[in-house]
Amino acid sequence: MKKVGVAILGLGVVGGGTYKILTEHREMYRKCHQVDITVEAVLERDRAKAIALGVEEDKIAANIQEICSNPDVEIVIEVMGGVEPAKSFVLDCLRAGKSVVTSNKELFCKYSHELEVAAKKNHCGLFYEASCVGGVPVIRALLDNLQGNKITSMMGIINGTTNYILTKMATEGAEYGDVLKEAQKLGYAEANPSADVEGYDATYKLSILSSIAFHTKIPYTRIYREGITDISVTDIEYGKKFGYVLKLLAIGKNGDGGIEVRVHPSFIKASHPLASVNDSYNAVYLTGDSVEDVMLYGRGAGALPTGSAIVGDVIYCATHTNYRYSTFKNTEDASPSTKFVDNFESAYYIRLNATDRTGVLAKVSSIFAKCKISVARMLQERGPVGEDGATPVVFITHVTRENNVKKAVELINESEEVAKVAAVIRVVS
Amino acid sequence: MKKVGVAILGLGVVGGGTYKILTEHREMYRKCHQVDITVEAVLERDRAKAIALGVEEDKIAANIQEICSNPDVEIVIEVMGGVEPAKSFVLDCLRAGKSVVTSNKELFCKYSHELEVAAKKNHCGLFYEASCVGGVPVIRALLDNLQGNKITSMMGIINGTTNYILTKMATEGAEYGDVLKEAQKLGYAEANPSADVEGYDATYKLSILSSIAFHTKIPYTRIYREGITDISVTDIEYGKKFGYVLKLLAIGKNGDGGIEVRVHPSFIKASHPLASVNDSYNAVYLTGDSVEDVMLYGRGAGALPTGSAIVGDVIYCATHTNYRYSTFKNTEDASPSTKFVDNFESAYYIRLNATDRTGVLAKVSSIFAKCKISVARMLQERGPVGEDGATPVVFITHVTRENNVKKAVELINESEEVAKVAAVIRVVS
Repeated sequence: MKKVGVAILGLGVVGGGTYKILTEHREMYRKCHQVDITVEAVLERDRAKAIALGVEEDKIAANIQEICSNPDVEIVIEVMGGVEPAKSFVLDCLRAGKSVVTSNKELFCKYSHELEVAAKKNHCGLFYEASCVGGVPVIRALLDNLQGNKITSMMGIINGTTNYILTKMATEGAEYGDVLKEAQKLGYAEANPSADVEGYDATYKLSILSSIAFHTKIPYTRIYREGITDISVTDIEYGKKFGYVLKLLAIGKNGDGGIEVRVHPSFIKASHPLASVNDSYNAVYLTGDSVEDVMLYGRGAGALPTGSAIVGDVIYCATHTNYRYSTFKNTEDASPSTKFVDNFESAYYIRLNATDRTGVLAKVSSIFAKCKISVARMLQERGPVGEDGATPVVFITHVTRENNVKKAVELINESEEVAKVAAVIRVVS
Repeated sequence: MKKVGVAILGLGVVGGGTYKILTEHREMYRKCHQVDITVEAVLERDRAKAIALGVEEDKIAANIQEICSNPDVEIVIEVMGGVEPAKSFVLDCLRAGKSVVTSNKELFCKYSHELEVAAKKNHCGLFYEASCVGGVPVIRALLDNLQGNKITSMMGIINGTTNYILTKMATEGAEYGDVLKEAQKLGYAEANPSADVEGYDATYKLSILSSIAFHTKIPYTRIYREGITDISVTDIEYGKKFGYVLKLLAIGKNGDGGIEVRVHPSFIKASHPLASVNDSYNAVYLTGDSVEDVMLYGRGAGALPTGSAIVGDVIYCATHTNYRYSTFKNTEDASPSTKFVDNFESAYYIRLNATDRTGVLAKVSSIFAKCKISVARMLQERGPVGEDGATPVVFITHVTRENNVKKAVELINESEEVAKVAAVIRVVS
């Protein structure tokens, strides 16, 4: 039976889960996959943590060189997160002829071009299924199942923390700040939550997924990004009245005008399959020109779900010799012929606080007309007035262009005596 | 650039869709996958159909031997369906050193052991992603993503025709026979619909999927099968009152007691992700010991979605040299150590027509108690009585064993003067 030794860099949540899966399932993999996978080394500064997991003392490496020079290690699992020292360690391992399996979205999103070149040069495998959407099989689906399609659209709920927060806000009517605190207490959000709530994490993942889907590197810096920190329960509740659910969506489109990539809070119809993806669940909804619609749903994070993706890559790497490179053509930027669409099309939800009730409709209508925005639905309810005695008025627009809405918002806010814009949320279909 | 010639056996719906995808996307595959895939031959008796699709006359083969001996053909796509002559043709091609991509679930389910042995012996690839759930990437997910897990449960809506019929019955209140006729008119159901509505098609697919998931051949003959032909709108409506949706589910479980595999109409909670899989959409809901829950959703049939899966396999086969065999250990039957559970556990929906209203509850309760069935919920409504002046009474049981319910049904029907059993439907969670 083939014997394959692995090393794990970092025994945090995901590293610990991966160690557990590999050691507990060793006999199953021998039986079902005819491969004997053993953890031959770990790199973890906290020796006590490693020992508590069951790692033998002599398997705890003192430094990355010990792992690179260990002839029993064939595959290195990098689950440290962040760019450095992960990047240097991964490059060291590849140069030493070790294949690498990583869950590090930030590293892979930012440096895939360097890592893939090193992997190819050294005839090593480089696998990163775990970098996006935890245990959900989305990267391999794009690489090995849907590659016969022109993928025209992807929409994803790909950050568990924000989906948990938005679900709680919608079901319990609690405001953002309170839910965030609760999420931090439960371990669903970090002490410094900005990577999640500001949308950075989602842009890293969208960069990786859209690069594969659209066959050109999509740098994360090209992705329009808006987090959920300004979302209020008021808008979630108004959205419900129009039949919408609010989600932080990562959107990639590849149309005739070019590629558009964006991460922002979005209203989607309650009947859309993504609308019922709740709590910390994730899903990616793909549309291809042959396959039509496909949705891949599951746990987007967590020790064991992410460990499942890592171990899947380890077994694949251990049982195949045919490694794939050039996912993103090994470039740092998009190919020169790629066009990006920034002034994208969308419908919009716009909430105003009308300070002058009598004049507001006439004024706002004329601004909308000037900006080529046509209103599909409008809601003004009797009842408790908003801040400063203002009356909330909500509009859902027909599809228009981003810049039209920016201009309209500017003009409305300039006419502050009439109304001011309290919220603008894109309505996605 | 690598050139790869393919042949297509059968230009029916799926064969035609596949031809279209391959020819229209040729340039895209050259650019994105560095491979030039051309259709070098087709086998289709109806020459006019081939020509109408755009096939050049000299590419229409007279017989399978012409394809086997054609040096320009590297990969053969089998989309004829049925066992013969597809089986002989596939074996001929493998023996001639051609890799095979098939969408033929009946063939692969029944003869995977013969086909895989032939493929391995001749160092050819044998790919069958398109055999199950159309364009939804479920086979590769099981083989290459989730193989680090012990898969404990799979539940699938894997037949589009029956899901279309059940969705229509639920939304329009139309009876089975009428909806079937409409489905036949629209091309969603065959003139002879029994493969779909009797559940055979779903057992073929469940056989393939559960064999991969559970690492042993699961012959389709081992799968308990019940179709949808006896389903009435009455039961769908009663189910709604309990918060259930009716689906034809293909279920595989791998628990401590052994493997259970079954295809039958099932009530599931309206909040379950599978409950909102409607019309001809399909989905597979998998549970693994590491990944937790994963759902893969999309078009389970149709020319282009199934073609997408075929072309995905063709590109994979054309760009890899590392073929996988022994999916099911190349055996015709389950491994001798495999235990199957027939007397499985489930909750049940039982509808009675009570002919003697006063005595019915006492009698039925005593039968349930005798059969170790405990009732979780019960519904008896005023209003229009059922057939023969009988009153419908509906029970939802707690989880019990299949044989307990069979026994209870027998005993209730023996007491025909009191009540008779009008419907029994398993409630799945």
